[in-house]
Amino acid sequence: MGHCGGVASYVDPEGEYERDSDYISTRITADGRDGYAVEPGRYRLVAARACPWANRAIIVRRLLGLEDVLSLGLCGPTHDKRSWTFDLDPGGVDPVLKIPRLQDAYFKRDPGYEKGITVPAMVDVQSGAVVTNDFAQITLDLSTEWTQYHREGAPDLYPEALRAEIDEVAQRIYTEVNNGVYRAGFAGSQEAYESAYDRLFAALDWLSERLAKQRYLVGDTITEADVRLFTTLARFDAVYHGHFKCNRNKLTELPVLWAYARDLFQTPGFGDTIDFVQIKQHYYLVHTDINPTHIVPKGPDLSTWLTPHGREELGGKPFGDGTPPGPPGDGERVPAEHSASRRP
Amino acid sequence: MGHCGGVASYVDPEGEYERDSDYISTRITADGRDGYAVEPGRYRLVAARACPWANRAIIVRRLLGLEDVLSLGLCGPTHDKRSWTFDLDPGGVDPVLKIPRLQDAYFKRDPGYEKGITVPAMVDVQSGAVVTNDFAQITLDLSTEWTQYHREGAPDLYPEALRAEIDEVAQRIYTEVNNGVYRAGFAGSQEAYESAYDRLFAALDWLSERLAKQRYLVGDTITEADVRLFTTLARFDAVYHGHFKCNRNKLTELPVLWAYARDLFQTPGFGDTIDFVQIKQHYYLVHTDINPTHIVPKGPDLSTWLTPHGREELGGKPFGDGTPPGPPGDGERVPAEHSASRRP
Repeated sequence: MGHCGGVASYVDPEGEYERDSDYISTRITADGRDGYAVEPGRYRLVAARACPWANRAIIVRRLLGLEDVLSLGLCGPTHDKRSWTFDLDPGGVDPVLKIPRLQDAYFKRDPGYEKGITVPAMVDVQSGAVVTNDFAQITLDLSTEWTQYHREGAPDLYPEALRAEIDEVAQRIYTEVNNGVYRAGFAGSQEAYESAYDRLFAALDWLSERLAKQRYLVGDTITEADVRLFTTLARFDAVYHGHFKCNRNKLTELPVLWAYARDLFQTPGFGDTIDFVQIKQHYYLVHTDINPTHIVPKGPDLSTWLTPHGREELGGKPFGDGTPPGPPGDGERVPAEHSASRRP
Repeated sequence: MGHCGGVASYVDPEGEYERDSDYISTRITADGRDGYAVEPGRYRLVAARACPWANRAIIVRRLLGLEDVLSLGLCGPTHDKRSWTFDLDPGGVDPVLKIPRLQDAYFKRDPGYEKGITVPAMVDVQSGAVVTNDFAQITLDLSTEWTQYHREGAPDLYPEALRAEIDEVAQRIYTEVNNGVYRAGFAGSQEAYESAYDRLFAALDWLSERLAKQRYLVGDTITEADVRLFTTLARFDAVYHGHFKCNRNKLTELPVLWAYARDLFQTPGFGDTIDFVQIKQHYYLVHTDINPTHIVPKGPDLSTWLTPHGREELGGKPFGDGTPPGPPGDGERVPAEHSASRRP
């Protein structure tokens, strides 16, 4: 479930927003049982920095050090009704796939493809066809099927002993938080909105309580669960607070979650994937039915993401016995003026 | 000049929003030189709790204790394209003027009246005609022309010795803050919006500096200048921050202004005029061109308006040698569930 993709209209006039949930479920595995074996250089991860679902895959690829075996194509922050586009690339064409619009890779897979043209998508470079866009499975497979190519010191984001707990926490984060903000923002009635708001903040209060005395969501290192919560928190004040009316509090007003979010943000592999400019452009420009003026807010002040968080005192080690990833590669750095280093 | 009144569309597609500035400038004076002398019971102040321009008059009437000589009619928070209505009153009719829509009083004054049907309006009860809707002059005249009827202990909100300074400060507050939030919210282009945002926050920074070491804007008691700034600050986090995209910071994140605003809010005559529910309904329901879904945000948490502000340490006495007004009269109390005592 969950994606960023083109649809004609976001707000559901019937009331409660429901997420399109039909993905291409082919998997890329070590044993290649679906016809797609893990191989260096064979696939391209197509993502967009704006999209929280794609952001997960960008983070996990960084944390695991898969940059050299799995290349990254980045779509621009906005898209038309139908497809994400490679408008950031020279000539508006992805340099590896040689296509201007992501839908071309979907049509290579199925000429009659009618579902959402979504990111993230894993594309088989040689055929140019999408293998899978099942965002929830993509990151788990990067952790469990691509192990042969993980960097030295890579963290285990989905350790066997903790999987049941990670799955349980992640499920609640998915329905109540990741998707919860969309449920509030795309609600078509006051009742549906208020119910979504209550569910969201109940979940955030639960998370605040859980994280008050432990540094990470499950165990004492970062896991897939933290990645999944982080991508929503990173967008909270920049877009969900105002644009989606998730405005009981700003994240900066929730002390535990704000410290937790900054701790992750300042951990290599997390904050260095966040492009606040693209994030704001995406939501405010694409959702014309809730922001018809197309004005993108200049605020909030995001430089506070870099302030001390004090979470080290809770113990825990982000990478366990491993090490943090190095800085992002040359072509993959978020420009300074799009990051938390700039004041509005 | 400013008002809350009906127009077909708020956002100016040409770019910068400009406020309609043509008011009925007849004055009600002690000497009656315009044909309208100050007299107990002769006039009715028609306002709406939602509107910041009308809020000024409601506050000043309370502070000066004019309730018994100048009655108050209250329109509901929303209005149609043309007129405010008395939809809160039994039968939808103002009990004194016996009209359902404020435009009826404007048409009594001029059957061909074509400008905005705005609040606040001072209406001559016997003829049923609007005398003036010049909101900036109305409060000054309440202070300087109605002195004979001020309560015992009423403050001097416009002391002669300080008028030049009050006028200067109030002018900057008007163009940069009171009107500044509208300029941001109704901007029709990204450039116009960003310019408005910069002007607004530059002014708020200037005010923070000015108020860091003095309790009130001019002199050491409350004046007209404080009333004018307060009505915008009271609406800042509830509507301007999100709805008008004035989101560099919430008011609660600007320590000096937040303490100053709470100090006034907790002063009798200020906070007891604020109806947060009506304020939010007004902006989010009336401005369909910036909030087409009609969803009214459930947040923010406004209970923090009642927290200690610590401004007493700066000295100053809100009412000088005078006294605060008593509590609002029976028919004029803001319901508890619309005030800062409720958490969202």
